[in-house]
Amino acid sequence: MSEENIIYIGSKPIMNYCIAVITSLQEKGDKVTLKARGRSISTAVDVVEVTKNRFLNDLTVEDIEIGTEQLESTDGRMRSVSSIAISLKK
Amino acid sequence: MSEENIIYIGSKPIMNYCIAVITSLQEKGDKVTLKARGRSISTAVDVVEVTKNRFLNDLTVEDIEIGTEQLESTDGRMRSVSSIAISLKK
Repeated sequence: MSEENIIYIGSKPIMNYCIAVITSLQEKGDKVTLKARGRSISTAVDVVEVTKNRFLNDLTVEDIEIGTEQLESTDGRMRSVSSIAISLKK
Repeated sequence: MSEENIIYIGSKPIMNYCIAVITSLQEKGDKVTLKARGRSISTAVDVVEVTKNRFLNDLTVEDIEIGTEQLESTDGRMRSVSSIAISLKK
């Protein structure tokens, strides 16, 4: 019944994603998953830590998974990129 | 009795760390932990994925922990930096 609640982390400022996490947990239930690829993986970890330390002290990390995804680059070749999925619960 | 086996991930090429992981698992037992801070967090995930996909298909991720560490910057002020610890088992 409950749709999985996902926030994709890209190159926006960290605080934008923190607000997205907080809003999501207020409006859409007590779980949210952050997903990121490549260099944004570090940003995803920053978002979790800043949200937990500054805004939601009761936020817990339920699960962290890492993997590899295949992306088609602009020249049409496939390349591998690392990914992370961080499941959070309030 | 068994010392924890840790590889710190920094700004060297990914393959250097892959070799360090493989060597460690050959010489120092079947477990190794990768630790990284800040932007190197993405590199740590890359190292795990490349090592697993290209060299050691039986490598498994046992645990991933994220956190915040306090570092003293060059001007003497403390700043927070995100960290990751990825525990691997062969």
